Amino acid sequence: MSVPISIAVVGLGYWGPNLARNASSSPSVHLAGICDSDAQRLNAIGSRFPAARRHQSLDSLLDDSDVEAIAIATPVATHAAIARKALQAGKHVLVEKPFVTSRSEARELAALASRVQRTLMLDHVFVHHPAVQKLARLYHSGELGDVTYIDSVRINLGLLQNDVDVLWDLAPHDLSIIDHLVGRPPLSVAAVGNSGGQGTPTSVAYLHLDYGDGLLASVHVNWLSPVKIRHFMVGGTRRSALYNDLDLSEPLKIYDRGVDVDHDPEGRRRTMISYRSGDVVSPTIPKVEALQNVINHFAECILSGKEPISSATQGIRVVEILEAASISLARGGAAVELLAV
Amino acid sequence: MSVPISIAVVGLGYWGPNLARNASSSPSVHLAGICDSDAQRLNAIGSRFPAARRHQSLDSLLDDSDVEAIAIATPVATHAAIARKALQAGKHVLVEKPFVTSRSEARELAALASRVQRTLMLDHVFVHHPAVQKLARLYHSGELGDVTYIDSVRINLGLLQNDVDVLWDLAPHDLSIIDHLVGRPPLSVAAVGNSGGQGTPTSVAYLHLDYGDGLLASVHVNWLSPVKIRHFMVGGTRRSALYNDLDLSEPLKIYDRGVDVDHDPEGRRRTMISYRSGDVVSPTIPKVEALQNVINHFAECILSGKEPISSATQGIRVVEILEAASISLARGGAAVELLAV
Amino acid sequence: MSVPISIAVVGLGYWGPNLARNASSSPSVHLAGICDSDAQRLNAIGSRFPAARRHQSLDSLLDDSDVEAIAIATPVATHAAIARKALQAGKHVLVEKPFVTSRSEARELAALASRVQRTLMLDHVFVHHPAVQKLARLYHSGELGDVTYIDSVRINLGLLQNDVDVLWDLAPHDLSIIDHLVGRPPLSVAAVGNSGGQGTPTSVAYLHLDYGDGLLASVHVNWLSPVKIRHFMVGGTRRSALYNDLDLSEPLKIYDRGVDVDHDPEGRRRTMISYRSGDVVSPTIPKVEALQNVINHFAECILSGKEPISSATQGIRVVEILEAASISLARGGAAVELLAV
Amino acid sequence: MSVPISIAVVGLGYWGPNLARNASSSPSVHLAGICDSDAQRLNAIGSRFPAARRHQSLDSLLDDSDVEAIAIATPVATHAAIARKALQAGKHVLVEKPFVTSRSEARELAALASRVQRTLMLDHVFVHHPAVQKLARLYHSGELGDVTYIDSVRINLGLLQNDVDVLWDLAPHDLSIIDHLVGRPPLSVAAVGNSGGQGTPTSVAYLHLDYGDGLLASVHVNWLSPVKIRHFMVGGTRRSALYNDLDLSEPLKIYDRGVDVDHDPEGRRRTMISYRSGDVVSPTIPKVEALQNVINHFAECILSGKEPISSATQGIRVVEILEAASISLARGGAAVELLAV
Repeated sequence: MSVPISIAVVGLGYWGPNLARNASSSPSVHLAGICDSDAQRLNAIGSRFPAARRHQSLDSLLDDSDVEAIAIATPVATHAAIARKALQAGKHVLVEKPFVTSRSEARELAALASRVQRTLMLDHVFVHHPAVQKLARLYHSGELGDVTYIDSVRINLGLLQNDVDVLWDLAPHDLSIIDHLVGRPPLSVAAVGNSGGQGTPTSVAYLHLDYGDGLLASVHVNWLSPVKIRHFMVGGTRRSALYNDLDLSEPLKIYDRGVDVDHDPEGRRRTMISYRSGDVVSPTIPKVEALQNVINHFAECILSGKEPISSATQGIRVVEILEAASISLARGGAAVELLAV
Repeated sequence: MSVPISIAVVGLGYWGPNLARNASSSPSVHLAGICDSDAQRLNAIGSRFPAARRHQSLDSLLDDSDVEAIAIATPVATHAAIARKALQAGKHVLVEKPFVTSRSEARELAALASRVQRTLMLDHVFVHHPAVQKLARLYHSGELGDVTYIDSVRINLGLLQNDVDVLWDLAPHDLSIIDHLVGRPPLSVAAVGNSGGQGTPTSVAYLHLDYGDGLLASVHVNWLSPVKIRHFMVGGTRRSALYNDLDLSEPLKIYDRGVDVDHDPEGRRRTMISYRSGDVVSPTIPKVEALQNVINHFAECILSGKEPISSATQGIRVVEILEAASISLARGGAAVELLAV
Repeated sequence: MSVPISIAVVGLGYWGPNLARNASSSPSVHLAGICDSDAQRLNAIGSRFPAARRHQSLDSLLDDSDVEAIAIATPVATHAAIARKALQAGKHVLVEKPFVTSRSEARELAALASRVQRTLMLDHVFVHHPAVQKLARLYHSGELGDVTYIDSVRINLGLLQNDVDVLWDLAPHDLSIIDHLVGRPPLSVAAVGNSGGQGTPTSVAYLHLDYGDGLLASVHVNWLSPVKIRHFMVGGTRRSALYNDLDLSEPLKIYDRGVDVDHDPEGRRRTMISYRSGDVVSPTIPKVEALQNVINHFAECILSGKEPISSATQGIRVVEILEAASISLARGGAAVELLAV
Repeated sequence: MSVPISIAVVGLGYWGPNLARNASSSPSVHLAGICDSDAQRLNAIGSRFPAARRHQSLDSLLDDSDVEAIAIATPVATHAAIARKALQAGKHVLVEKPFVTSRSEARELAALASRVQRTLMLDHVFVHHPAVQKLARLYHSGELGDVTYIDSVRINLGLLQNDVDVLWDLAPHDLSIIDHLVGRPPLSVAAVGNSGGQGTPTSVAYLHLDYGDGLLASVHVNWLSPVKIRHFMVGGTRRSALYNDLDLSEPLKIYDRGVDVDHDPEGRRRTMISYRSGDVVSPTIPKVEALQNVINHFAECILSGKEPISSATQGIRVVEILEAASISLARGGAAVELLAV
């Protein structure tokens, strides 16, 4: 085992303490510092992590030469500036989703990280979930056949945010999982949505990503749903899979069900369709907190120099989709081509 | 109790026998005849309904002056011609969904029925489901507050049809429920979808209906889903409701959950948002087969001359939406205005 | 295909019409007659089965030499007398559960059937359910390891019966499934229960069957439960299985989960216990109505002379358990040995 | 707000750290110390609670005059001796379930606590769960009518314990909830059970408690179940309730369903039974960790001198039932009267 990476957490709102807790219990990193401009918050959270130095300013943190890497969990509007400063100070950077507010910022940071040879990784936490890892292996193995649709539903009575709408708040989860599976950007994006009443931001939204090659991916995110649903469905010509994040005992199910289409050899005038209703398998999934995997993977990439699976490139693609979706939303749902943004 | 209406069923494929069974067990109608061009099918089904005369041709059926009304369960392409002939022969007509293949046909039939003073009703069976009836009373009472979204999911490993795509096959169910609640046509419709692989029709589709006044209704229909889901969610500013057709014990749930938005009186610069997480109520729903309600309501409308709740007007609106959706699908998802079709 | 067996249904209350419907649609039998002392009921049901002769008395039915077999669906108190007469008249007999009211009647009928060489079969319908058939193959293959417990829960807001308590009404389902798996009588039976308030019969009951060899089987039946649950769990040292009759898409699940117990070779002073949390498999189960299987199996046994899987021997064992359970109930739950009844 | 009570946690195995975490975040107590004989464990857990003094021996802890109260989370065999010493040292005591290994120990400790005027409370954590609190108010209000049965199922693939069997490990949860509702000891207890294979302790068990007055309470606990179920059902003549600890969104449901029994006034010869299938209500339940309530209630009882709801008296009753159940288990399930133990 190598020496643990010294890491500090910036921003101690909702997510930051989770990062700190996982960092402090990970064998691969050492929680060296925490940082928040609110002194009261800093001390309240700091009392749980006595070994971490407390910083009220980013500059003070970045000056600490013991700190090798930082994890950013501040409001999204501040991500780009903090990440830029940290990379320039020679720190490795893990950024909470959504990455940044525009693709130009995303690209600039990726280029900077490359230039200074530091690891820039996205905290796309679901990409590191053991069930998604299993699903990705299945997807890439070809066992599903040709995948024709992906349908992700992430709805709940959620906290309306002030700084982002539901699209930028929730959809990065779905988009990063989709990106991890598909591995390329969509051709175009369409989005429709609605607010939850006068004075509220977009709180219900639907995204449709046309990936070409017969693949359509759709995402439904909703802050106003009275029920909590997290369904991620992948439909292939041979098999289909459902990742249900709320089913603790069987989070991933693989269905040997589908439609067989045989084309009439004599002229293709008729299509012969038959159904398969086969077994359902729920593979055993290790019970590991996904955020623990994030922390360990970040340390591993820093040490080895290899590209994270939730890389800056993935971060750029997710932000590009969100940016295009915002444009589509403003245009009443018209599809926006990714290159034409 | 009045004398039962004499009814005949035309088309003995999948749905026709259900109509015949419900007609034969309803106190308000009398199953006087059945009709199918396939003699073997006619006799096989006929043996279950010994009191019903068997007709191999529509003309023979329409000539039977004992028959006051017919229920059409043939392939959709034949609906308009059969309904036209039947109305002209002075019969009342119940038409299986989808109504017809174009709005011009729909309008022509509605006008004809009006002219000959016969009842023309759609077999929009879910509109007559006791849970939907309860939901509609709730919706119209205003207890939900302002409804901002409707989300309907109807997915299953279903039979790919030859004559219709998944939109025309399944969405009439959702669209008729939505129409029954909202009671007016949407301003525009957008649809995206995908086939289930080469040579198959559109098998996955999403519809988005902009009703104006802050209401967005969305429908996801899918023939290729390995799991069966039928969720119909209505989100209001005061309450929300979920009709889950597969939950036999609690098909309708009303959630006293929501978001309260208070506008800052001094200049509306800040929005105060608070959450309510109140009780959930599942009202008791009578266990009546919806199709039995359809038959009884048809008889009642014939006798009283009143407009059916699943009227020809509703049928026109549903077909207009489907037609616009097909256009949107062909145009890659661009919204199609209803008046501009 | 051989000539269909001519069968008649006796008793047209709740279950009889289901038997008649399945008989009339089965290729292996011909519904030749129906019988009920209530003329109005006889004609109402008879109109659905025009090919079946209507009999108002058992004697008239038994005199009909065309009838080869009868299915008895009358109140349990009449089963023994009707079955006896029918066997004596040379008819094969299918008896609805519960078989008879005492083990002496059960044994007498089994002996009589053997003497007159007619098939006597129990309508233990769950034994013929495809999921139970699959479970039985699994059980008998040894793949579950040593089975240490069986737990069956069958609870619902059910119809309180006048002639039987909840034990005799519902438990035959569970006991016949258990008997089909285990294949031998238990050593002893204990039962506790309660009424649903003054003046009502036993409406909640628990049975515990000690099968020796480390196997305990338990049954919870309840007419007063506000929720409907039908769980049949089989726990083995290698695998476990759950048959959930209400889960239409995955009625049977096989869990590769369990506890490995390794005994310390040096003196057995310590027990090493480890856990396995493996895959879950839901094998595809044919969607066949169990009662259709019952009818076909009855016809097959009549033709071949082979012993039905829900044989009179199984019927005797189930009645013996019920009789012992009633004694245990009366004695406040003390275990009653099967041989000592 | 009064000064927080200084508390120390003894035993840092599975449950102790949870107690420490809740104590350290509660406003009503101050985590003053932690104690474990294993120095490595003491320091590992201690690093999370820097403000708590670390003690490797009980004597050292009890000598600390700053400590007013202790929470015992050691193996059950040590509970009595530790509690005795602590009470004698003038500390208030919270004991993890199961309380002690015999009713004589239970009674002795209760008497001692009374004599030294210190609070002795049981950590019956489910009694302090908001859903159970709501259920208890409902029960005691009489809105359920006459309660005829309670059925509790607590099954899972659980950790086989070395020092206790499944009865003593899991059933205290169910028995304390039942005791909290019913408020009096049962007349008799019967228990049957089984091991999970040679060399393992009783791992599956069923308890039946006869409370007289027409109330039967049953408990199924199981360490070997492949599925996790936690159902607590209460059946009344007017209403029924189901507390499902695993349903996070609707943990408590109240069913306006039941059986109305009307006795025939003329001689009670006939019983008129009718069914009600009314609404289901899921009252909103505060999302508070039950253990947080335990800690706060302990502090409140220490300050006010009032009897805890999970009192030593409840602890005695639960241990008496467990002791009787163990005797019944050894006697093959024969009912054991509580007074006759």
